[in-house]
Amino acid sequence: MVTTTVASAADAQRLAAGAVGERLAACVQVEQIASHYVWKGRPHDEAEWRLACKTTAHAAPALCAWLRAQHPYEVPQLLAQPVQASEDYAQWVTEQVQAAPGD
Amino acid sequence: MVTTTVASAADAQRLAAGAVGERLAACVQVEQIASHYVWKGRPHDEAEWRLACKTTAHAAPALCAWLRAQHPYEVPQLLAQPVQASEDYAQWVTEQVQAAPGD
Amino acid sequence: MVTTTVASAADAQRLAAGAVGERLAACVQVEQIASHYVWKGRPHDEAEWRLACKTTAHAAPALCAWLRAQHPYEVPQLLAQPVQASEDYAQWVTEQVQAAPGD
Repeated sequence: MVTTTVASAADAQRLAAGAVGERLAACVQVEQIASHYVWKGRPHDEAEWRLACKTTAHAAPALCAWLRAQHPYEVPQLLAQPVQASEDYAQWVTEQVQAAPGD
Repeated sequence: MVTTTVASAADAQRLAAGAVGERLAACVQVEQIASHYVWKGRPHDEAEWRLACKTTAHAAPALCAWLRAQHPYEVPQLLAQPVQASEDYAQWVTEQVQAAPGD
Repeated sequence: MVTTTVASAADAQRLAAGAVGERLAACVQVEQIASHYVWKGRPHDEAEWRLACKTTAHAAPALCAWLRAQHPYEVPQLLAQPVQASEDYAQWVTEQVQAAPGD
């Protein structure tokens, strides 16, 4: 599972639909959060949208590269976590995802 | 931690309360998300509710089996992730959860 | 990533801003959830706020100790999960976080 965050619903929609359309993720779940952080010395408490992308271990690097290329942030949060999926769901994810042309 | 998603608040409520009532999970956290995916060739962007169920490693298989049996989807997302819990919280979860009769 | 939950937006705000201000977390993401659990024999279905704190492995114990000391719950949920971060984001987190004075 790869997660990232963006600062607008429009960017969240664009990245989520794009990652699925490019077949780099089988499913992307989006939710609004409040983010607290310090950036260049100033504290921030801002709305963000978090994307949780379900993909395969094989496709995760290509997904992260695509997200980075599409991302509006200078330093995007790109986190990856292994998750164990039920067999039929894992099968569905594998069928949906093509990490590279000809995959 | 076991997560799944459903397409209605009512199903989320039913599964969350049921998993806790059956003592298969100590706590279930529910939130609304927007899910992007392709199903049978058609792109979807729909509201879903995600359930994050806190249980023990021992009870996780029984929880997943119960969720599958109760689930409205043909292929439900059932994901499991190990998480490290503070001792007293882990103790509480263990006390709340009974994976099988006589456990 | 360290997660905890509290029962009010005010406590979520206080803990999130504090963890970042104390430089125990680089970023804290807050969202509202519905929590189902049984406490002292009675079923609960209540609003809670979940905090997902991004920190370093080194600082996680100090973050958990600080959260516990500040937390309104008798038995707070304190969960820790390793996540793999993109290099530049991991670098930013490391720069933001100081687990102990003189770190």
